[in-house]
Amino acid sequence: MNTFGHRFRFTTFGESHGKALGCIVDGVPAGVKIDIDFIQSEMDRRKPGLNEFATKRKEGDVVEILSGVFEGYSTGTSIAMIIFNENQKSSDYSNIKDLFRPGHADFTYFNKYGIRDYRGGGRSSARETAARVAAGAVAKLLLNELNIDIKSGICEIDGIKASSFDFKNTKSSEIFALDKSVENAQKEAILKAKNSHNSVGGVALINVKNCPIGLGEPIYHKLDAQIANAMMSINAVKAVEIGDGIEASRVLGYDNNDQIRKSGFKTNHSGGILGGISNGDDINVKVYFKATPSIFIEQETIDIYENEVECKLKGRHDPCVAIRGSVVAESMMALVLADMLLLNLSSKVENIKKVYAK
Amino acid sequence: MNTFGHRFRFTTFGESHGKALGCIVDGVPAGVKIDIDFIQSEMDRRKPGLNEFATKRKEGDVVEILSGVFEGYSTGTSIAMIIFNENQKSSDYSNIKDLFRPGHADFTYFNKYGIRDYRGGGRSSARETAARVAAGAVAKLLLNELNIDIKSGICEIDGIKASSFDFKNTKSSEIFALDKSVENAQKEAILKAKNSHNSVGGVALINVKNCPIGLGEPIYHKLDAQIANAMMSINAVKAVEIGDGIEASRVLGYDNNDQIRKSGFKTNHSGGILGGISNGDDINVKVYFKATPSIFIEQETIDIYENEVECKLKGRHDPCVAIRGSVVAESMMALVLADMLLLNLSSKVENIKKVYAK
Amino acid sequence: MNTFGHRFRFTTFGESHGKALGCIVDGVPAGVKIDIDFIQSEMDRRKPGLNEFATKRKEGDVVEILSGVFEGYSTGTSIAMIIFNENQKSSDYSNIKDLFRPGHADFTYFNKYGIRDYRGGGRSSARETAARVAAGAVAKLLLNELNIDIKSGICEIDGIKASSFDFKNTKSSEIFALDKSVENAQKEAILKAKNSHNSVGGVALINVKNCPIGLGEPIYHKLDAQIANAMMSINAVKAVEIGDGIEASRVLGYDNNDQIRKSGFKTNHSGGILGGISNGDDINVKVYFKATPSIFIEQETIDIYENEVECKLKGRHDPCVAIRGSVVAESMMALVLADMLLLNLSSKVENIKKVYAK
Amino acid sequence: MNTFGHRFRFTTFGESHGKALGCIVDGVPAGVKIDIDFIQSEMDRRKPGLNEFATKRKEGDVVEILSGVFEGYSTGTSIAMIIFNENQKSSDYSNIKDLFRPGHADFTYFNKYGIRDYRGGGRSSARETAARVAAGAVAKLLLNELNIDIKSGICEIDGIKASSFDFKNTKSSEIFALDKSVENAQKEAILKAKNSHNSVGGVALINVKNCPIGLGEPIYHKLDAQIANAMMSINAVKAVEIGDGIEASRVLGYDNNDQIRKSGFKTNHSGGILGGISNGDDINVKVYFKATPSIFIEQETIDIYENEVECKLKGRHDPCVAIRGSVVAESMMALVLADMLLLNLSSKVENIKKVYAK
Repeated sequence: MNTFGHRFRFTTFGESHGKALGCIVDGVPAGVKIDIDFIQSEMDRRKPGLNEFATKRKEGDVVEILSGVFEGYSTGTSIAMIIFNENQKSSDYSNIKDLFRPGHADFTYFNKYGIRDYRGGGRSSARETAARVAAGAVAKLLLNELNIDIKSGICEIDGIKASSFDFKNTKSSEIFALDKSVENAQKEAILKAKNSHNSVGGVALINVKNCPIGLGEPIYHKLDAQIANAMMSINAVKAVEIGDGIEASRVLGYDNNDQIRKSGFKTNHSGGILGGISNGDDINVKVYFKATPSIFIEQETIDIYENEVECKLKGRHDPCVAIRGSVVAESMMALVLADMLLLNLSSKVENIKKVYAK
Repeated sequence: MNTFGHRFRFTTFGESHGKALGCIVDGVPAGVKIDIDFIQSEMDRRKPGLNEFATKRKEGDVVEILSGVFEGYSTGTSIAMIIFNENQKSSDYSNIKDLFRPGHADFTYFNKYGIRDYRGGGRSSARETAARVAAGAVAKLLLNELNIDIKSGICEIDGIKASSFDFKNTKSSEIFALDKSVENAQKEAILKAKNSHNSVGGVALINVKNCPIGLGEPIYHKLDAQIANAMMSINAVKAVEIGDGIEASRVLGYDNNDQIRKSGFKTNHSGGILGGISNGDDINVKVYFKATPSIFIEQETIDIYENEVECKLKGRHDPCVAIRGSVVAESMMALVLADMLLLNLSSKVENIKKVYAK
Repeated sequence: MNTFGHRFRFTTFGESHGKALGCIVDGVPAGVKIDIDFIQSEMDRRKPGLNEFATKRKEGDVVEILSGVFEGYSTGTSIAMIIFNENQKSSDYSNIKDLFRPGHADFTYFNKYGIRDYRGGGRSSARETAARVAAGAVAKLLLNELNIDIKSGICEIDGIKASSFDFKNTKSSEIFALDKSVENAQKEAILKAKNSHNSVGGVALINVKNCPIGLGEPIYHKLDAQIANAMMSINAVKAVEIGDGIEASRVLGYDNNDQIRKSGFKTNHSGGILGGISNGDDINVKVYFKATPSIFIEQETIDIYENEVECKLKGRHDPCVAIRGSVVAESMMALVLADMLLLNLSSKVENIKKVYAK
Repeated sequence: MNTFGHRFRFTTFGESHGKALGCIVDGVPAGVKIDIDFIQSEMDRRKPGLNEFATKRKEGDVVEILSGVFEGYSTGTSIAMIIFNENQKSSDYSNIKDLFRPGHADFTYFNKYGIRDYRGGGRSSARETAARVAAGAVAKLLLNELNIDIKSGICEIDGIKASSFDFKNTKSSEIFALDKSVENAQKEAILKAKNSHNSVGGVALINVKNCPIGLGEPIYHKLDAQIANAMMSINAVKAVEIGDGIEASRVLGYDNNDQIRKSGFKTNHSGGILGGISNGDDINVKVYFKATPSIFIEQETIDIYENEVECKLKGRHDPCVAIRGSVVAESMMALVLADMLLLNLSSKVENIKKVYAK
């Protein structure tokens, strides 16, 4: 179950403190120009160690393509990518070898599998998401062929909400803030928590422009359901909203319906998805990240022998996982859309005839 | 893509105004006592026409088992169930044959497929969920063998929130209300909207007790991700929260972490899921339904020829889909857990040896 | 695991002596003209009771479509079809209720599931294949849109081989014989075995004309591998050959290679498949059916209590399952090709642009 | 579509002359002792360059584990393995860059994808099977926990058949011959073909001992169907027989049925599989490999511009792919059985209770 997607699918491997991590991307159509610099630039957006709002762990996160690309183009065969881990301080974890860190997967992995790689959370570490960003970059290269554009940014930190969304601001913001007017307050909230050995949560907004009408396979592979699936698979995510989300449950039907004119939908409360299928309007999704569970305040826990013990963490952690997480959410959106794009090819006989016409 | 699940999987068919709808449930282990009365009682909880808070469409929703059961027990082969439609007033739809109803899937189905069964929304109708409830009842029969217990109720209508959750109250409440103290206010909100030809949204809470530790398959079949997938696949759902959900992104890490004692977790902010795997605590999920898009107020729309027209609906509709939707959400939870239960069997070599021991 | 296929997939249900059997066909593109008379005519080719070379069990095998078709065309939603069983003589089976019939799945089903519907083999009966023929007929309707033509016939009975293949002859032959010159000898072999309460085996040849180049998804969804999978899933099949098959392992490389000219391949030893992908030439597959295991000669066996007992069958059985089996093999070929046709749509970026071009 | 299996599944990547090839094995239960020396020894059985009956290409085929193993045991997470290519003589291929080699996948890959890595066949090269052997070795480590034993050997070369099967002889035989009495004749046939720049075909026999009763998931994931699928996915395989295979279609029912006594089946014509489910007896499968298509005799072909040209191959090739192919077939058998072993865990409620019992 380390695979996501149906026609455009990827499978990941690797642990936080293992030799390497990576992925196999399968189902990439032949003929996509594979721009390795672009893939690396996507990796760099997520990579750790960049500033005081992220973990100090330094990783080059250099991605290498092992297969599936020939003379710069995808060949239709599986594309493997590998990222070697460079900066493993496994010693940081010796004191928690037998402990279950509160808020982490230690307890559940140990009980499910009876064995676990305790170093940095092993497979359950958010480091696994580096492989998703590499796969997501390949998905974006495909989506670009149809001018589908995906952006992300931070719209809330520690309850401090953006009131406007400016994706340009995210490019220069160390915390990918969507609203410059609250960016400093958001940064301060992060640093304040960090300095008190605590952590904060945050919210990412993902926006898609120019999505073709028709993506999403009812009934059990709806676009919104797969987006929810994808987002909730990211470490620390606890809620997902499509379009107006929760607000849509608090207004009357008349106010929530998007009426239609020749020129398009008059409003976009739906977030660009109707009946699980894209309607051509912007797709908007909010992804809620809990506060980083790795904190440096003493906590109560038990160990694998069921002794009650104190948990005192060392190591290097993001004070707010939502920030780098937003890049992962953007990658997952790309991966979902690439899959849906391919699945939708067979929706009509007419499409099939187009492809097989001689 | 009309199939959900991996090992315990079901496939549904049927349109709102077709001859019948139903499902094939595949992967049910042999030896489960199949209590058809229980399955019917689950159908009855969701069925339309029961009171003034639901659509007036009368359907017996009598379910018949066609295969996979022998002398009262599942045989390990596929279980087909069928529900014949009884009360189709297709004439209600003749005036909207060529229109795209705002807030509905009409627009997207037509654009995706180039053809659609316009009667009552065809396949995109929430009537499809009757088949899910039948499948979910079979899942519950399996879960019962391990005493896993799933309940649901309504915790919010039109923004009016329950402040306490009493699942006993849902049994006698026409709107499955979890909080008797706000039940009347919630009912009034529904009727007020209904009387003004409008509709309201609402929120369902799903609770699971006695879930074994270890359900959920990382990385891409996590329990919370599959729950989100399942819930978001239900008609009109726009947001899903696991445990504290959004609130978890607004408190500090220390306050959100569930510390652990020998006797169990001290709190349950996580909603019973850590790292995508059940931790043995109660699973709590909130599912947000938008206000019913079918309203009787005139709306602007276009038709399939791209003419701008007025949309005036007739027919019979739920003024608040969250109510009957909560039963569907409960069924989907059962279906996800049944699947996870089977998937988890192979987590350890130890389990395999138990099964194959002679 | 009652589902076959990825993009064009079908799921079957039903037991030999249950109420009904049928299937859900999922992934049918919208806009295929669904000719119910054609589907019925396919059912009629396989149906039992037609002549002395088949079982005497009489079944109308009338197929009814329950969903997925609107005004004569597929809508892109799941197509359910149902066939009610008419002629169940369950009493024939009371004497073998607790026995394991040699050559049958009784022993393995009982040991695997701990329970079984013993009437006529229950789910393991070849009666299940009626549902495949219904699904296969829908696949053929799709393939017809691209003029892909599939035929089948009997090329060997009880070791008596056809020396030429005339698919026209199969239309008028009660045993679908491909070679008129051996047809009578083949018929006599069947009747001779039947009259001595025994049975014979046979071989079906499946031929596909006008298959587009490019069908088949390497590495693990190759066209030949999926054909082998499909054919071997048919009751009583014990061997599958692609093209020259076994002969290809007995000649030198030079003699087996199909050299290429502008006008096409000079020979077709490969059976139209190279590297798991169709090469545009005729696809030829041979499917070997063992002699019917249901015979009326006394045999040694054990019962479910491990007593050694004599097995004396009653009931009505085909003296040679290969005959009606050839229709099933043809249907499975249609189902594999329909799936491959849809999967291949995403092989190149160029195809994707064709579909999404505005 | 580079993934095989459902619960125990593997995904491969890599081209003949790329940087590396490898696989991700997913679904390995936690707690399997991962013996890297054993995995390497399996690689060594298949590796090229060992003797005059194989290609001269020298590859160490050293396999490295990148993830999923901790302190010598599987952790339940995905196991990635990598094999770097060492001995790529891409220059051998410059003269056939634009040609379609007869009997190869060049023609079909080019037509399907519009682009291909021509060096050594790229992805369509049998070199990909090195990754299968690595994955298969992990599968064997799991099967060993239940004492399931798989062997393979060569039973026919160039039409010269073994009359007895001695798996011990395969260990010391350069061509894995099962019958010492024909081994020399088989070797001579290979060398004779090789010396005349031609090639021969051959047949592998795969045998499984101590397989538990109950493996195989009807109707569309039967054990024999998945074996056929797996075997036919191997390069150059053109036919598969289960048990007596073709012979089962040429004898009478009475002679083919395996009668049953308390002590077991009296015969094993079925090859250990009834109704698609293992019956506990030995599983026997024959896999037919065509003669290597790479020969050094001039052949007629066309190039990508549709010019008619002569094809003159250089390079290093196996004169008989069946030999090393037999190891791959054995690996595929292990992979199918491992998958079936896990799938069968959920066949009965009884099994589930055993696993979840506290």
